[in-house]
Amino acid sequence: MQRSELYKLLNIKLDLAVEAHDLLRGDAGQEIPGVKMEEMPFEYGQIKTITILNEQGAAMMGRAPGSYITLDSPALRENNKMVHKKIGEILAEKLKTILPLQENSTILVVGLGNWNATPDALGPKVIEFSMATRHLFQYAPEELRHGLRSVCVFAPGVLGITGIETAELIKGAVDRIQPDFIIAIDALAAGSVERINSTIQVATTGINPGSGIGNKRVGINEETMGVPVIAIGVPTVVHAGLIAHQAMENLFNHLQNTPALRAVYQALQPVAVQQMINQVLEPFGGQLMVTPKEIDELITNTAKIIAMALALALHPGIPPQEVEHYLH
Amino acid sequence: MQRSELYKLLNIKLDLAVEAHDLLRGDAGQEIPGVKMEEMPFEYGQIKTITILNEQGAAMMGRAPGSYITLDSPALRENNKMVHKKIGEILAEKLKTILPLQENSTILVVGLGNWNATPDALGPKVIEFSMATRHLFQYAPEELRHGLRSVCVFAPGVLGITGIETAELIKGAVDRIQPDFIIAIDALAAGSVERINSTIQVATTGINPGSGIGNKRVGINEETMGVPVIAIGVPTVVHAGLIAHQAMENLFNHLQNTPALRAVYQALQPVAVQQMINQVLEPFGGQLMVTPKEIDELITNTAKIIAMALALALHPGIPPQEVEHYLH
Amino acid sequence: MQRSELYKLLNIKLDLAVEAHDLLRGDAGQEIPGVKMEEMPFEYGQIKTITILNEQGAAMMGRAPGSYITLDSPALRENNKMVHKKIGEILAEKLKTILPLQENSTILVVGLGNWNATPDALGPKVIEFSMATRHLFQYAPEELRHGLRSVCVFAPGVLGITGIETAELIKGAVDRIQPDFIIAIDALAAGSVERINSTIQVATTGINPGSGIGNKRVGINEETMGVPVIAIGVPTVVHAGLIAHQAMENLFNHLQNTPALRAVYQALQPVAVQQMINQVLEPFGGQLMVTPKEIDELITNTAKIIAMALALALHPGIPPQEVEHYLH
Amino acid sequence: MQRSELYKLLNIKLDLAVEAHDLLRGDAGQEIPGVKMEEMPFEYGQIKTITILNEQGAAMMGRAPGSYITLDSPALRENNKMVHKKIGEILAEKLKTILPLQENSTILVVGLGNWNATPDALGPKVIEFSMATRHLFQYAPEELRHGLRSVCVFAPGVLGITGIETAELIKGAVDRIQPDFIIAIDALAAGSVERINSTIQVATTGINPGSGIGNKRVGINEETMGVPVIAIGVPTVVHAGLIAHQAMENLFNHLQNTPALRAVYQALQPVAVQQMINQVLEPFGGQLMVTPKEIDELITNTAKIIAMALALALHPGIPPQEVEHYLH
Repeated sequence: MQRSELYKLLNIKLDLAVEAHDLLRGDAGQEIPGVKMEEMPFEYGQIKTITILNEQGAAMMGRAPGSYITLDSPALRENNKMVHKKIGEILAEKLKTILPLQENSTILVVGLGNWNATPDALGPKVIEFSMATRHLFQYAPEELRHGLRSVCVFAPGVLGITGIETAELIKGAVDRIQPDFIIAIDALAAGSVERINSTIQVATTGINPGSGIGNKRVGINEETMGVPVIAIGVPTVVHAGLIAHQAMENLFNHLQNTPALRAVYQALQPVAVQQMINQVLEPFGGQLMVTPKEIDELITNTAKIIAMALALALHPGIPPQEVEHYLH
Repeated sequence: MQRSELYKLLNIKLDLAVEAHDLLRGDAGQEIPGVKMEEMPFEYGQIKTITILNEQGAAMMGRAPGSYITLDSPALRENNKMVHKKIGEILAEKLKTILPLQENSTILVVGLGNWNATPDALGPKVIEFSMATRHLFQYAPEELRHGLRSVCVFAPGVLGITGIETAELIKGAVDRIQPDFIIAIDALAAGSVERINSTIQVATTGINPGSGIGNKRVGINEETMGVPVIAIGVPTVVHAGLIAHQAMENLFNHLQNTPALRAVYQALQPVAVQQMINQVLEPFGGQLMVTPKEIDELITNTAKIIAMALALALHPGIPPQEVEHYLH
Repeated sequence: MQRSELYKLLNIKLDLAVEAHDLLRGDAGQEIPGVKMEEMPFEYGQIKTITILNEQGAAMMGRAPGSYITLDSPALRENNKMVHKKIGEILAEKLKTILPLQENSTILVVGLGNWNATPDALGPKVIEFSMATRHLFQYAPEELRHGLRSVCVFAPGVLGITGIETAELIKGAVDRIQPDFIIAIDALAAGSVERINSTIQVATTGINPGSGIGNKRVGINEETMGVPVIAIGVPTVVHAGLIAHQAMENLFNHLQNTPALRAVYQALQPVAVQQMINQVLEPFGGQLMVTPKEIDELITNTAKIIAMALALALHPGIPPQEVEHYLH
Repeated sequence: MQRSELYKLLNIKLDLAVEAHDLLRGDAGQEIPGVKMEEMPFEYGQIKTITILNEQGAAMMGRAPGSYITLDSPALRENNKMVHKKIGEILAEKLKTILPLQENSTILVVGLGNWNATPDALGPKVIEFSMATRHLFQYAPEELRHGLRSVCVFAPGVLGITGIETAELIKGAVDRIQPDFIIAIDALAAGSVERINSTIQVATTGINPGSGIGNKRVGINEETMGVPVIAIGVPTVVHAGLIAHQAMENLFNHLQNTPALRAVYQALQPVAVQQMINQVLEPFGGQLMVTPKEIDELITNTAKIIAMALALALHPGIPPQEVEHYLH
């Protein structure tokens, strides 16, 4: 059975490029034309950079051409804030290499998601921890903004709260502020539980419709915004349908020595599997998420790491040992 | 395979008595000795009352003798506040029949759970919406408390936040306030997705160790508190392991016409199934919950229904058409 | 001594037109050319409508031509929610007479102010209680929006939090949403303590630079937004300098039978009085506010009244007895 | 006119011992029998220790015998977090000298005040930032609690929210937890604006009835709790009546060269002054507070300083350069 067909039926999207890549490469690890992948280990994990080089790669990956950097570390899930800080510094270094930073850049940081729903609140939490500086450039004496760049921060809420499409609110702000680029933070859905809060993805392609927990209807990317959009995402949930499907696959793997079964299983249509899964998930269907009990604490920790990385990457004058003093 | 054995291995407890009862009765619907069940329909659903009459029933059900009233209504999940209010009034009537109310009763309402984790925040939210009146009996003129009973409300937080076992904080308050009884609100884990936010359970037996999302280590019941404890709970999550298991069962049901398979499946040991499931849930194990995306809104709505029902049940002088004015 | 000169020195602005009007008319109650005033009592207070008819009146009043409606009621400060609801209904009726409502209007409601500072949080609180409906017109079946108008709601935060001028963010949203008009809610500064939370002002002229607690630098009015802006404001603070000055005036009134004193007092220069006052307010100067201890509860109550009035005024199909069901 | 008599009439209490001391000493700076005062400068301000040695001193000062340490620094009001951290370290050192710390001490930290009212929310904010460790001593392996003491943290709310006297809730917790001592954090009222958020007071005598913003009716001290109570307080407001009175005094000082006036002023009765002031403050009377606009940010900063100082003082194994990692 084709997994991708089932995912489509279950309305499951993989937000992490690295998972889409793994899925495409399969167990044999075949190369994907038009896609390049590099790995680099660091003290607490590894950084994978997937580059979609051309339209062929884009079609295969179902994603726009650009870079997708994945910082993986199980330490993101542990409560050691010394290590978190070091990961923040590594993320900052990585961001510096891809952000189109000029000395006088104005940057708009937007925190996507619903502040009332814990697993979706990553973006608003990063905003809460971050410091705006743009007004200092308009109203404060020069010494107050020494070593800083002009940054504004903004959590636009979600359609159900405001009645306004997120992308509309952001585009409105962009038209007024005219930032040089946008950084958009969002909570993502992963393809497996072990990715939850152990991965930070940075994408130079912005945010595409349908991605993230909140099901955006309009993308937030250079095409819609008119300026580059760098997306930072962390998976905080897995679709419940994926859990169900993975359990079924495990059962099948266990039973597969029974030859009669193999034939039956191979004949299974995705639509039949979808029905079995939906039966479990009724009446919430695709709206069910799997998330760890301590998700609030995980998200607070990760939001701090990202806020720290942003402060270090955006403001040249903040030394790492003082970065906490520039967070709220 | 014994489902109950698997649940024990997966550390899954069914918080709803009605689900434990269904499980025990099986598909054949056999009677459980020492347990009585009554059903009563109402406009928007039904009320089931399970009474555990004696120690035999208690042993079968794994619960203390007492009444477990379950108000079921899919309307709890819909956003029709007129219907919510009517359900609140029905819940209030039901509460009046089981609360040990005297004219001069002092009542302590405690909202259990972690206010930082949406699916566990039901209890604190009910407290936020509820009005304390006990101080009016000490400091305010008599006309201000006409038609009211003396109520205090309190959200004790969770062990990880305070370092204090919830039951300790409540017992401390009970010793000082000497309430006539306690009402404890808690978010529960259900055995199936369709129960999420469609059921309100009222139990005259209080709250037992290990129940609820927060895994209490000490019970909050008449034995530990010295006064009757009535528990009001709403399932807001399902253990992810249950979803995985139900999907596997659906797959098996589909495949069971293959005779070779039936034998293999029947020979499956719970511990093997547990391993298949845990493989999916690693590294979070039993700490993964399944919850709907819109859980924040569902919980706010249900917390208001419960706060409304409490106001109507506890204060004789509040007419239903004015009850909103007595909520925060 | 000229009070207006002192106010200018102390950087005190009177946000309520009715206070500016009283000040201008003086104790003798003289007519102000170009300004009309009407009074209408209602069960719990009175409604004063001040109309600035022309540029002459505008120059005298220091305000744009338009209507300034003041609903005064001490009941706004009492905790009787039945009365609050009735005041909400009266406010709704008044709003209906001045809002440029068409059957298909789209309305943008903005809640100004800092959600982190209680006395300034009125606007964001109204937004929190209000229901957005605009997305229903795009994505929901027609029966779900029966009797509703298209409303979006939005709390833009303050410059110090976002780095973005409030008016910029709103103008950005306006350009995208193209609402027919804007309703802007803001916390105001009053000229005397007795106005705190006992007055709701509705102004057809929007919000002007420097008004409100948050010291906007750019106005939010038809000129800057391109569509009509109706402002709803409630005074929640009095500048501490005003309290100081009023106490001094009381002392002088008491002492004025001493002829020697009168001459001395009359010779007092505003700048000398300013120094005496600033000495008391150092080092916070004009940034000190006087506010009641229970301001959080007062603001929550008033925000609910305004949210209720908006729901009733904007949506033709919401009956007053059900309005609570349309609030969050 | 006797200032103390007027304060009594206006129901104004000075929460800072150092202000009561200054008032008693008068402009001449006379010694107060039974009271000792020491001053020590530090880089960013000074530390004054007032010791009430005996009952005579206690009667003069209107306070229990014990130590009242005042850390004064205008830097508390500035937004330099490097300096804040250093002040936190100095406060920690001071706390270590007066806390009755044993190796195995269990400490209960309580954050008094109303989390819904910004100027009163200092205590709850310190709790929010602080880390509980007591449960690690019951449930976690030894290495996880290395270098830590057993601390529990708790914000009991206020009477109007819970219906429970704060002291009752704390005493209930104390009876269950049996801590070796209590640290109680509270927002205070100052006698002058320049004290707002520039002073941290540590008192070995706990908290007395009527002190703080919230007007406790019952003390939280060794007498009521059975264990030592160390109070940490920061003034966040000044009673509006004080501002009014100080402005009147400034006016008088200005006018006093007029001999006729001096006689009149000297004949002024406190009750007449009270009437002049109350006229300004009607209808809120003693319930009006003066507080800076940016009080939310000031309180967040000070709460962090105190949380940092508590972490450093209570846990021997936390090095100053890592203390941020032990805060929430």
